[in-house]
Amino acid sequence: MTTSTALLTDHYELTMVDAALHAGTAHRASVFELFARRLSGARRYGVVAGTGRLLEAIERFRFTDAELEFLRDNRVVTDRTLDWLADYRFSGNIWGYPEGEVFFPGSPLITVEASFAEGVLLETLALSILNADSAVATAASRMAHAANGKPLAEMGSRRTGERSAVAAARAAYIAGFSATSNLEAGRSYGIPTMGTAAHSFTLLHDSERQAFEAQVAALGADTTLLVDTYDIEQGVRTAVEVAGTELGAVRIDSGDLPVVVARVRQLLDELGATRTRITVTNDLDEYTVAALAASPVDSFGVGTSVVVGSGTPTMGMVYKLVAHQDDAGNWISVAKKSADKASVGGRKSVRRSYTPRGIANAELIFLGDGPGGDAEGGDDTGREILEPLVIAGEVQPGHTGSDGIAAARERHRQRLSELPPVAMSLTRGDPAIPTEYR
Amino acid sequence: MTTSTALLTDHYELTMVDAALHAGTAHRASVFELFARRLSGARRYGVVAGTGRLLEAIERFRFTDAELEFLRDNRVVTDRTLDWLADYRFSGNIWGYPEGEVFFPGSPLITVEASFAEGVLLETLALSILNADSAVATAASRMAHAANGKPLAEMGSRRTGERSAVAAARAAYIAGFSATSNLEAGRSYGIPTMGTAAHSFTLLHDSERQAFEAQVAALGADTTLLVDTYDIEQGVRTAVEVAGTELGAVRIDSGDLPVVVARVRQLLDELGATRTRITVTNDLDEYTVAALAASPVDSFGVGTSVVVGSGTPTMGMVYKLVAHQDDAGNWISVAKKSADKASVGGRKSVRRSYTPRGIANAELIFLGDGPGGDAEGGDDTGREILEPLVIAGEVQPGHTGSDGIAAARERHRQRLSELPPVAMSLTRGDPAIPTEYR
Repeated sequence: MTTSTALLTDHYELTMVDAALHAGTAHRASVFELFARRLSGARRYGVVAGTGRLLEAIERFRFTDAELEFLRDNRVVTDRTLDWLADYRFSGNIWGYPEGEVFFPGSPLITVEASFAEGVLLETLALSILNADSAVATAASRMAHAANGKPLAEMGSRRTGERSAVAAARAAYIAGFSATSNLEAGRSYGIPTMGTAAHSFTLLHDSERQAFEAQVAALGADTTLLVDTYDIEQGVRTAVEVAGTELGAVRIDSGDLPVVVARVRQLLDELGATRTRITVTNDLDEYTVAALAASPVDSFGVGTSVVVGSGTPTMGMVYKLVAHQDDAGNWISVAKKSADKASVGGRKSVRRSYTPRGIANAELIFLGDGPGGDAEGGDDTGREILEPLVIAGEVQPGHTGSDGIAAARERHRQRLSELPPVAMSLTRGDPAIPTEYR
Repeated sequence: MTTSTALLTDHYELTMVDAALHAGTAHRASVFELFARRLSGARRYGVVAGTGRLLEAIERFRFTDAELEFLRDNRVVTDRTLDWLADYRFSGNIWGYPEGEVFFPGSPLITVEASFAEGVLLETLALSILNADSAVATAASRMAHAANGKPLAEMGSRRTGERSAVAAARAAYIAGFSATSNLEAGRSYGIPTMGTAAHSFTLLHDSERQAFEAQVAALGADTTLLVDTYDIEQGVRTAVEVAGTELGAVRIDSGDLPVVVARVRQLLDELGATRTRITVTNDLDEYTVAALAASPVDSFGVGTSVVVGSGTPTMGMVYKLVAHQDDAGNWISVAKKSADKASVGGRKSVRRSYTPRGIANAELIFLGDGPGGDAEGGDDTGREILEPLVIAGEVQPGHTGSDGIAAARERHRQRLSELPPVAMSLTRGDPAIPTEYR
């Protein structure tokens, strides 16, 4: 595995650059837009995630000798194009929805202003990262809301690709989860990690009691004991006998949870372990979390459903050329007319409008032609959404690293609080606010 | 990104090692098994993929100073355990279904024979890789069969995480796809890559004709022209005018494909481009591929649906301790009794039985206790399935790298030909052959 991200892309991005260089059109100033035509899964809102990862990946988007050798050996492009790629550094501007922001159909999540060749090369990478990370964040946000303030841990590493697992932990944290089981996410992004033991640990020992004794000896009485390997009630009794009433928590990973949880709470209280918490981890999703939120559960561990986007593993975002300059320097808005896949041409700016009480009520998209920042196209309604992410090739501060993640998490909390109540519905339906083109 | 894979794992694998080292149970000889309780998505068969990637990842599963520093700083484990981790090399045996093989409920895809501590550490990584890669391969195999011999290219990089995209291209190739759009998959695994141009290339130019001229000038008349940016019929006419009747192919990415494809074929023939091929790429899955297989389509490009497992993005595989030695050296079969999550204890061997005409008719799982290779437990019925993948810590030849991929692809083709016809049904249903415990 190399540190260059330049081959994490589709073959045709390179052949397009090759042909455009040949035709003399590669250097035409262009505007590309990344957006979703609709909210996959009939979600009420989407959550932007992956932006910080994308910016870090763009900084490593370099064609070193190793990448050039592959392209040469496989005749992907001509030698002249290899020379151009060897010098490639993204030198344009990128505006976008900052990470953690919510989005709606048509929201221009990323606007890339660059030459055609510079901008088109980023298409696949940008979509890979934002489609996957935003799908996880969008599902995670629903789960966090359904938990009604109780903490959730992301524990799904085993149910998605080993590198996607790290990205998923990051996206879930931005969307409101409080921890992850994934150690690489702890190292790479500073996300709190947690975990104690699996059923195999109990099965390794000669008895459940011996296993609990071993765990408490190593991790202390404040640990979490997994009590459902054999019989849950007996497991709870043994756990409290071994750890005492200061036992930190019991974890339940099977069974009819509402019934089991109520019984375990009652039993813990009877045994004097009134402060011992209950955490549950059995194939949860936003619906089962919501159903358990009012039960005496203290925290949730969510695995498969969050890392695969709870039925929506990708957001269906696309990356389209929306404007370019012609040879006379005029900006031309362009749009595809394919059936069912029409796009809206032109550089856009976005404002979100609010009711007098501060609740969002529309996503306003203003159409322009060529590049421009927040000064262009809009009016004074509501709040400007797009922020500069990259200016003249320089990644702007505040979006990457652990600081970017912390800011994104806080931003998401704030934006969610501004959405109308219908946004929190777990049923399929229309977006929480309409998208209006101005 | 580091080359060590050791932190691509769950926190609790490390705390279990810590507690077991403390208790003196960490070194108990153990057998872990990776299997799926059922076939997710009610598939008729599963396809094993990721095995080669897992073996390569195990060779890089090392706790270097960087990993140890993270674990120390975050107090994940005690200092004694850090010392043990610093020396970690997997030294046990791994038996398994070779890559490309088909599997059924309960099939022991991976059997790990090692100390508890050595074996438990691999749980998360093994599941991440096999769950994700096998989900893609299982979907891809259905699609390849549905295409009825016509070639499919994997083009879904943009709809899954940027590293999962590379793994997905690999898994789809093993399951019968013939190429990918993903350049990193070409470099890392030697998979053929392909692609020509997107709609943005057409939109960049002053006219569709100018775009086609630019592409043909750079890539030759044998290229594939995307004809649906504006009007498909006009696009086809312009394509043949520009490239001549030697035009390689036209690509259609929108519209009501059966109708459009028939009309485009007729038009190409009328224009004399009788050898120009038609490739389609519009949100295809196994069902739309099957519906188009009899139409004059020459090849398919499949994106989203294959990389997200066509509704089944993960296979639900688990990794369980099934046997361990006690202090007296006796092997003990162990199994969890949790509701709905019961496992079957003991080391297993597997034979697939066949009818006299060579059609598979049962997956026979023979129960043992402790470790053992193909000599143990079975009888002479059918064909032995498990192969040695790692012996005494050494990865066995034939399973990794490009050779492993080629062997897996051929193995899959062969195994698929041995399944009964019901295996090829695209409807949900029972596994194609029953799993029988002997």
